Amino acid sequence: MNKKLVSEKDIEYTLDVNLKANGVELSVSDIRLLVEGQLAAPKNINPDSWIELVEPNPSEGLRKALQDFLRYIDSLTAEKKYSSADRIAALRTELRRRGLDGFLVPLSDEHQSEFPPKCSQRLAWLTGFTGSAGIAVVLKEAAAILVDGRYTLQVGMQTDRKIFEILNIPEGSVDGWLDRNAPSGSRIGFDPWLHTKSEIARLKEKCGRVEVELVPVDTNPVDEIWNQQPPSPLAPVHNHPKSIAGRSIKEKIQETASIVRRNGADAAILNSPDSIAWLLNIRGGDLPNTPVALGFVILKSDESVELFMDHRKILRDTRGKLERSVSLMAIEKFEERLHSLCVQDGFIQIAPSTIPLWVNNQILEAGGQIIEREDPCVLPKACKNVIEVQGIRNAHIRDGVALCRFLAWLSEAGPRGSVDEMTAADRLYDYRKTMERFKGLSFETISGAGPNGAIVHYRVKPETNRKLQLGSLYLVDSGAQYIDGTTDVTRTIAIGSPTDEMRDRFTRVLKGHAALAMVRFPVGTSGGQLDALARQALWDIGLDFNHGTGHGVGAYLGVHEGPQRIAKKSADVPLRPGMVVSNEPGYYKEGAYGIRIENLQIVRKTAVENSSVNQQEMLEFDALTLAPIDYSLIDRSLLTTDEISWLNSYHRRVWETIGPFLDVKATNWLEEVTQPLECK
Amino acid sequence: MNKKLVSEKDIEYTLDVNLKANGVELSVSDIRLLVEGQLAAPKNINPDSWIELVEPNPSEGLRKALQDFLRYIDSLTAEKKYSSADRIAALRTELRRRGLDGFLVPLSDEHQSEFPPKCSQRLAWLTGFTGSAGIAVVLKEAAAILVDGRYTLQVGMQTDRKIFEILNIPEGSVDGWLDRNAPSGSRIGFDPWLHTKSEIARLKEKCGRVEVELVPVDTNPVDEIWNQQPPSPLAPVHNHPKSIAGRSIKEKIQETASIVRRNGADAAILNSPDSIAWLLNIRGGDLPNTPVALGFVILKSDESVELFMDHRKILRDTRGKLERSVSLMAIEKFEERLHSLCVQDGFIQIAPSTIPLWVNNQILEAGGQIIEREDPCVLPKACKNVIEVQGIRNAHIRDGVALCRFLAWLSEAGPRGSVDEMTAADRLYDYRKTMERFKGLSFETISGAGPNGAIVHYRVKPETNRKLQLGSLYLVDSGAQYIDGTTDVTRTIAIGSPTDEMRDRFTRVLKGHAALAMVRFPVGTSGGQLDALARQALWDIGLDFNHGTGHGVGAYLGVHEGPQRIAKKSADVPLRPGMVVSNEPGYYKEGAYGIRIENLQIVRKTAVENSSVNQQEMLEFDALTLAPIDYSLIDRSLLTTDEISWLNSYHRRVWETIGPFLDVKATNWLEEVTQPLECK
Repeated sequence: MNKKLVSEKDIEYTLDVNLKANGVELSVSDIRLLVEGQLAAPKNINPDSWIELVEPNPSEGLRKALQDFLRYIDSLTAEKKYSSADRIAALRTELRRRGLDGFLVPLSDEHQSEFPPKCSQRLAWLTGFTGSAGIAVVLKEAAAILVDGRYTLQVGMQTDRKIFEILNIPEGSVDGWLDRNAPSGSRIGFDPWLHTKSEIARLKEKCGRVEVELVPVDTNPVDEIWNQQPPSPLAPVHNHPKSIAGRSIKEKIQETASIVRRNGADAAILNSPDSIAWLLNIRGGDLPNTPVALGFVILKSDESVELFMDHRKILRDTRGKLERSVSLMAIEKFEERLHSLCVQDGFIQIAPSTIPLWVNNQILEAGGQIIEREDPCVLPKACKNVIEVQGIRNAHIRDGVALCRFLAWLSEAGPRGSVDEMTAADRLYDYRKTMERFKGLSFETISGAGPNGAIVHYRVKPETNRKLQLGSLYLVDSGAQYIDGTTDVTRTIAIGSPTDEMRDRFTRVLKGHAALAMVRFPVGTSGGQLDALARQALWDIGLDFNHGTGHGVGAYLGVHEGPQRIAKKSADVPLRPGMVVSNEPGYYKEGAYGIRIENLQIVRKTAVENSSVNQQEMLEFDALTLAPIDYSLIDRSLLTTDEISWLNSYHRRVWETIGPFLDVKATNWLEEVTQPLECK
Repeated sequence: MNKKLVSEKDIEYTLDVNLKANGVELSVSDIRLLVEGQLAAPKNINPDSWIELVEPNPSEGLRKALQDFLRYIDSLTAEKKYSSADRIAALRTELRRRGLDGFLVPLSDEHQSEFPPKCSQRLAWLTGFTGSAGIAVVLKEAAAILVDGRYTLQVGMQTDRKIFEILNIPEGSVDGWLDRNAPSGSRIGFDPWLHTKSEIARLKEKCGRVEVELVPVDTNPVDEIWNQQPPSPLAPVHNHPKSIAGRSIKEKIQETASIVRRNGADAAILNSPDSIAWLLNIRGGDLPNTPVALGFVILKSDESVELFMDHRKILRDTRGKLERSVSLMAIEKFEERLHSLCVQDGFIQIAPSTIPLWVNNQILEAGGQIIEREDPCVLPKACKNVIEVQGIRNAHIRDGVALCRFLAWLSEAGPRGSVDEMTAADRLYDYRKTMERFKGLSFETISGAGPNGAIVHYRVKPETNRKLQLGSLYLVDSGAQYIDGTTDVTRTIAIGSPTDEMRDRFTRVLKGHAALAMVRFPVGTSGGQLDALARQALWDIGLDFNHGTGHGVGAYLGVHEGPQRIAKKSADVPLRPGMVVSNEPGYYKEGAYGIRIENLQIVRKTAVENSSVNQQEMLEFDALTLAPIDYSLIDRSLLTTDEISWLNSYHRRVWETIGPFLDVKATNWLEEVTQPLECK
């Protein structure tokens, strides 16, 4: 490494910010040892952020050495295999001390994160269950864990059935289980930071006839008994430059504050990390795969903004830029500011489905009035500006180059029988990481061979790792974070010769994908209205897929973002120009194979035609993702002329855009796999 | 007429029930004169019901004579052309007397009827506006009327612009107008019988920052000043036999009471006339075109039922049957019973979007707990049982015979240039009324020639009556009530040769209709998910239609019923086997022509195929309506092979089912217009 890049001052700053925060005392020479791979980094610091702090352009070797060290340190300090029994016993003692008869342990954190940081993974710590949705209820005698259908199998393997009754949502419910198990008059505690107002309101309504009382607690009893609970993440916070964000912090504050004014509110409370990152043009590293920093914001209608965030993680440059438009406040001041705001102004806007009930209760306690509206950043963030769109397109070209190099490699290596799910995922990562502006994966790669492809939320582990075998399908769903865009793409590849059934199913999935790629629709149309188009060809033969068809995607932010979706339910937000949304129909035959074809698409206005007088303003999708779709899986006789023309023109675009960036071998492969299909 | 059928006892009963109720004193000999056409019938009695009371099998001449008489009497007693100015002045005086600064005058009645009875048409009486949706707001100085886009033109012609500011919903809103016009601190009255809880809650929330107070009134001030307000309708109530309803009152009470129990409620309050008619197997005549009787029901979880209805309209036979399962109560007892119910039991189920706020307030006042759930009759009523389905199919065959006779006649008479919208509608009525079990129209026929066809809610009047001209389109949307079913069908007919544009647009509407006729979908799918299928071919060229695609239809009940719909919005109720729903895409070119193709369809399970192992349970639609679709409007080159096969098989069914009931000439016509189209 180039040691000159690490100045003494930088190192002192780092020491101050990150290490002391974690109770670690390291000398400057320790730091040198650390970045040279001779000492372990402190826990709970994202290795990538850490390296960047110390060394802006780390070599691959350095990065890998540090990662290995972190893993080693993790393994040394990892707590011994959980004993749910001990933990539950401790929790019950703590509940008794507080006069509670039970407690709710949800998966979520204060920011309703999809993947909460380690310090907030109370459900996993208590129960062993590591899925991405679930809740536990602990009573004096009984305990239950509730998960949805995706996790039935997993929860059974990870949790102790002697302690936890396992229930499936939606057949099982917290209120139903309480009704059967909680003695009349029970006082059930919950942490109002971890539940939204809507969630508790629903539960209270349902518990109306169950004789239990839901009691908010001041501090979480799980934290009380969790001895080695990690500290809150403290990854460094960077500026996201206007040249990439497209709009200044000031412009964004103006727009969102005007929404707050229009709603008749004096301020809005933001707790969503990606809203805050978008609004303040910052990016962090507090969560895996999503470059955000945890904190809270008070956005006032007069365009003043207060950011509540641990100061130690805000780098000096970032601080300088932020302080031009934002007041930086210690997180401990949040409660006090919230109270004084209510006294001063009164009308506070919150999003009932994302804001912690705690915030809601504080506002009411302080005499404020609540105005329930969506987070004012959500819609402006979803509608990408022209500079963001350009960045996103560029990121997708780079991602397409990496993916095509991978697919070209796979076309040779796959049928040879030496590739397995893990080596394939690693290979794809290796192609991606060489790309400019690459910052990491946008989610853990789903690399599923044969029957593993049929597990929608599959994550490869050594125990389940499978070889790619001839006559099987390989499904790879992956994405990356680039500074200028976030990607998410799925391709399904035949290894050797597929069966007629596989080709029939793949072609029906493709028909659904094509229908959504070709559709034109009037302004005001929601993803819920379009969802059936992606399913119709499967419905025709009595089949379907059991997940949403499309989700929003951020610009170097969350790979899942709202408010738009394409799905059967809860997808009634109109699609607007600039929104990015995935198009990912699939079909899954349990124990056999999985199929999914996913492109990201951007919503745009259709070019006006002069055919008719009273024509409305129409919208359409334009594909962002650029990678070929496997011809060997297509039954041409099932495709209409329109579908074939669409596929040919998509493949022509892939060839023309990606071709120039490939080596000779991969270019030849791409040319062959994007040759136009002839119409019948 | 056969006088023997009118016994002295019947006549005395009639006198008692209907005439005295309306303050009319008629002797027995008067009644004789009346049915012989020599005396006018009392106002506000549906002539058809009246005749049936006195004479079960009236001759056509008798019916016509009586109708003419009623019209004559109507014209004598009709109030002179409204003067909104006088009425508004009187209302303002009344408001002042009550200490109110304003008042809301909605269109709805206590039952949220789509077409309220005369006595409840306060909005029309006060403003002159007779559309089917709107609300007026009257302040001390200013007044406004708010209507949606359908009625912008009409409201301008019917109301006095010097008095009323006209606003369009959704751009204009009651709260917005109050904000601009009501002085701070204004007390705005409203009649809690005429607004639902949801409606007032929404308005109160929106008025949060407007400094006005919404004040419920005990009696409606409009009624106070409406001198000749007609009395409540008192049409006779008949039993609807189990042989047609398919299920007994007892069975229906058992099912709905079990829903009430499942919701944790002790009783449900019903105010929807069609729910009450369905539940108690009764039919009435209080509203035009829908055979219902106005009243309220308390349905208790222990399966006891109280019906609150004016006893005078319940015929002796009906009373006898009803009293086996239901307690008949005077309408005046409703408040008292509601109160005692709350004291006794506590948990009362109401539908917040249909129950008057008055009921809600009474429950709270009496100490009851409210459980907000849909009316428990709505879903069981929507899912027709096998006997109902058989009746509905039979009614559609008869209706198809009438419609085909009409279309056959029109195919000759239309191009001759002598037919106008009114004569066409009358002719269609004449064909229908000869059918067995015919009880009247299910709505006022929409008979639109040329540009009138483009007015979606067109109702023919002498002033707008147009001839059917060569080169134009004729749109006829009509339906009938038969004792065993309710119909609703639209056909668009080319008079002479249509233009290429007309054929293109008609074919795209047909493609939408066909897509919805052919689709298969999994259990759980809602109409909102399918709606886009009916629009896609129009969207492709930047066109659309500005109304829902499909509505539920009752069994000898409302031609519009919930909970299912096929539409862009508010259509998230899953379709279930036995539901009847219309399929009616259209296209409207203002000032030129209108196109709509409407069949009623019934939801049914698809036959299971043995192709796949993990096949889900699928649903599909089966057409009920049987009438040909005009080939001269089809551009065959736009149709796919699947669409042509569907059309051919539909036409084959029309020919095979309807053909046997036509005369030679009409049979020849039908055979020709249902010949299969050749595939390309």
